[in-house]
Amino acid sequence: MFNLPFRIGSFIMLMWGSIMLIPIMVTGGNLWEIGVFVQSAVCCYFLSWLLGRLSSDYQVTMEPRPLFLATSINWLLMSFTGALPYVFSMPGLDFSDALFESISGVTTTGSTVITGLDSLPMSLLLWRSITQWVGGIGIILMAVAVLPYLKVGGMRLFKTESSEWAQLDSGHIYKVAKYISLTYFTITLLCYLVYLILGMDWFDALNHSLSTVSTGGYSTHDQSFGFYQQPSMLIAASIFMILGGCPFFLYIKSIQHRSNDVFRDVQVRLFLKLILVMVTLVCVARLLSPHSEGAWSIFANSTFNIISVITTTGYASQDYSTWGSFSLLIFAFLTFSGACSGSTSGGIKLFRFQLLYIYVKEHLVSAVHPKCIQSREYNHRPVSEEVLVSSLAFLFFVMLSWFVCTMLLAACGLDPVTAISGALTALMNVGPGFGNTIGPAGNFGALPTPAKYILCGAMLLGRLEYLTLVVIFSREFWKW
Amino acid sequence: MFNLPFRIGSFIMLMWGSIMLIPIMVTGGNLWEIGVFVQSAVCCYFLSWLLGRLSSDYQVTMEPRPLFLATSINWLLMSFTGALPYVFSMPGLDFSDALFESISGVTTTGSTVITGLDSLPMSLLLWRSITQWVGGIGIILMAVAVLPYLKVGGMRLFKTESSEWAQLDSGHIYKVAKYISLTYFTITLLCYLVYLILGMDWFDALNHSLSTVSTGGYSTHDQSFGFYQQPSMLIAASIFMILGGCPFFLYIKSIQHRSNDVFRDVQVRLFLKLILVMVTLVCVARLLSPHSEGAWSIFANSTFNIISVITTTGYASQDYSTWGSFSLLIFAFLTFSGACSGSTSGGIKLFRFQLLYIYVKEHLVSAVHPKCIQSREYNHRPVSEEVLVSSLAFLFFVMLSWFVCTMLLAACGLDPVTAISGALTALMNVGPGFGNTIGPAGNFGALPTPAKYILCGAMLLGRLEYLTLVVIFSREFWKW
Repeated sequence: MFNLPFRIGSFIMLMWGSIMLIPIMVTGGNLWEIGVFVQSAVCCYFLSWLLGRLSSDYQVTMEPRPLFLATSINWLLMSFTGALPYVFSMPGLDFSDALFESISGVTTTGSTVITGLDSLPMSLLLWRSITQWVGGIGIILMAVAVLPYLKVGGMRLFKTESSEWAQLDSGHIYKVAKYISLTYFTITLLCYLVYLILGMDWFDALNHSLSTVSTGGYSTHDQSFGFYQQPSMLIAASIFMILGGCPFFLYIKSIQHRSNDVFRDVQVRLFLKLILVMVTLVCVARLLSPHSEGAWSIFANSTFNIISVITTTGYASQDYSTWGSFSLLIFAFLTFSGACSGSTSGGIKLFRFQLLYIYVKEHLVSAVHPKCIQSREYNHRPVSEEVLVSSLAFLFFVMLSWFVCTMLLAACGLDPVTAISGALTALMNVGPGFGNTIGPAGNFGALPTPAKYILCGAMLLGRLEYLTLVVIFSREFWKW
Repeated sequence: MFNLPFRIGSFIMLMWGSIMLIPIMVTGGNLWEIGVFVQSAVCCYFLSWLLGRLSSDYQVTMEPRPLFLATSINWLLMSFTGALPYVFSMPGLDFSDALFESISGVTTTGSTVITGLDSLPMSLLLWRSITQWVGGIGIILMAVAVLPYLKVGGMRLFKTESSEWAQLDSGHIYKVAKYISLTYFTITLLCYLVYLILGMDWFDALNHSLSTVSTGGYSTHDQSFGFYQQPSMLIAASIFMILGGCPFFLYIKSIQHRSNDVFRDVQVRLFLKLILVMVTLVCVARLLSPHSEGAWSIFANSTFNIISVITTTGYASQDYSTWGSFSLLIFAFLTFSGACSGSTSGGIKLFRFQLLYIYVKEHLVSAVHPKCIQSREYNHRPVSEEVLVSSLAFLFFVMLSWFVCTMLLAACGLDPVTAISGALTALMNVGPGFGNTIGPAGNFGALPTPAKYILCGAMLLGRLEYLTLVVIFSREFWKW
């Protein structure tokens, strides 16, 4: 059972260690900083060797249990080793802080415990952004190549879609990974160039492009993206967050077929409609209440922050919790939504709401007309019972995890708003919560240590779509 | 289609008008007060005559659509006519307030807009309590006799259980109604006697027994049940709230079979366990934090308020929102739970959580062991797919209604906490919300008029288990 997880782990630790050497390029020859990243990389290489030794050469079979284990173990490995550069370079930092920052990075959550970002070494800032970028591509590959083969959160819905051009068991996985990585890299490069043209310096443009396309939300400034107040910059960032929130395999399909497959997808259409409606609502609410800002700035900031929350990026250009009760509640509800499946975004994701709607509508019709026979379709394809059930199970885990995390955080002494919104924003991998401590203008550094560990668990749970992590702790998993 | 709703409506308006004459007994001969109730009763009698004229003598068939219509129309009729005594006797009262008080009564919610309860005429206080008592028996009869025959919120689960001794189509409905009413009346009488013995005066004992057993929560004092601070009184009230929160047909089964069927029911067991766990948690949390109250008083007050929220009664003996973050969140989450099906309580109700758990566990096992064949059982009976689907649809409507109501309330200018908790407490028919305005120590009178109408709609929506009201507004309902 552990053969597949260890073999994959050995490969991933080798890659992860090598990626850790990248920030050395911006150390400017500072030997101490170089040492930090070399030490961290060596740890990864050692783990890679160890896992390689522990695994055997037997043929691996694609069964659910080893796949579940491989997924969970590797995210955990990346999270813990990702904390090493923080541990080695910031001796004053508590281990809980280093782990929080690393997990918030690889899960593309974007909550931070570090203040004084503007004075941090460039190499460490780059490492933060890199963890998000790698986490982003990791989650896309997981959603396309692993989850559709497991009964997790209704992701089997996309099995047929992706299998048109990729099948896990027939060795096409490398082709998928290559195409998706290429698309991801290209969009990031485009984002970098646009930021440069609009006036960011090269280092900020690099970091922000890495954390925009991965819908991560780490910034190089304590003010987050609010450091750049030009409306053009905010709109450009919004567009790239939307690109990061769409299903990546649709881009490849669109290019291959030279078609507009992306815009014909019902999930993408809902995503764009939702943005349109919410931006309109918030803009109208803000324009109707007393305001000192110009209309153009209100539009740009509303658009930016709404898209930042829907795509679970978590940048903030202003403290949107001061925009009034109506807008605040819209932001609170959008924290749940997430963008599309097969993207870098977290949250519940829109296709699950669409599946739920299909389910409920079917039930409503059968309640009124018991003899009516109905067909179930999503994106012009039939939907199986199993896909519906696992989407609903996903929603159940969301609610249960939210309840448990909230109560644990409250037991750590957090006030109700911080506990409720902190648990939610971590589970949904969004970033900012609400309230004075962890709001859009706040920071997670002030939380007590146990609360940070709870949030670390919540971020991983959300990123692994709950079930992937939960099954491993169930009795059924270890039976037979 | 309207024949059945009108015939039932005619009968119910006749009964409702007659019930309106009861408060005349406590007017002490005050002619003006007598006039109020006679006028109201005359309106009901007129409606009864009108509906009787509109319906024909044709044989009615038990089809879903007329049953849906009959249920919704009759709750609406009772709500609007129930407001008449307030309209006639309090000329200064806004119509929205009268309607709110009436709907809060018949739906056994217990939120009030009236301050100065202690100086209100006895007849009007009695009318408030009577609306709750009648609303309570109404909901039990609906849950036992109507909902199991409709695909609403998984209530078909109880079709087999109740059909052992009652079948709607074979005319046994009167027998069911008689037995259940008798049980309900007996428990209320017992409650009245216990309150008398413990030291309430006859009028308070009467009113509180009516609103305890119906898990309504209207009191004759602005302080709510906090007017009586003796621990023995609080514990006695807790026991009768629990009795009101259990499935009433189980009492009858237990008596008929001379067995302990009530305690063997998995829903009742969860209900009692949940109370035990939550009381323990809150007591421990309160004893661990600085407190000036005695342990016995903390225990009595914690028990009373927790049971009041779980059973959706909504009495408050203290302002529990000041008991600290942990306790407050427990109260917030318990607002969702509700007690058992076939009782007077509102909320989601515990059997739906149990069904969801069955569903999720089944999915978890099948994710790990795809070839494993599982059986579905609830209370040692097989569970059909349809019951699970309609329970899930119920949860979907809860979430959707909560979201829509919250946003509408926020658009009326309410602050986030009041909007979120107000929508929730109304949909769940609990009573008090959170925050300074509508918290356990507050009152709904200060809300703007549109907000009151929104809450009226929410209370009815929750009481009619969402779907019953929603289908009527769907296009499918009026097709064919």
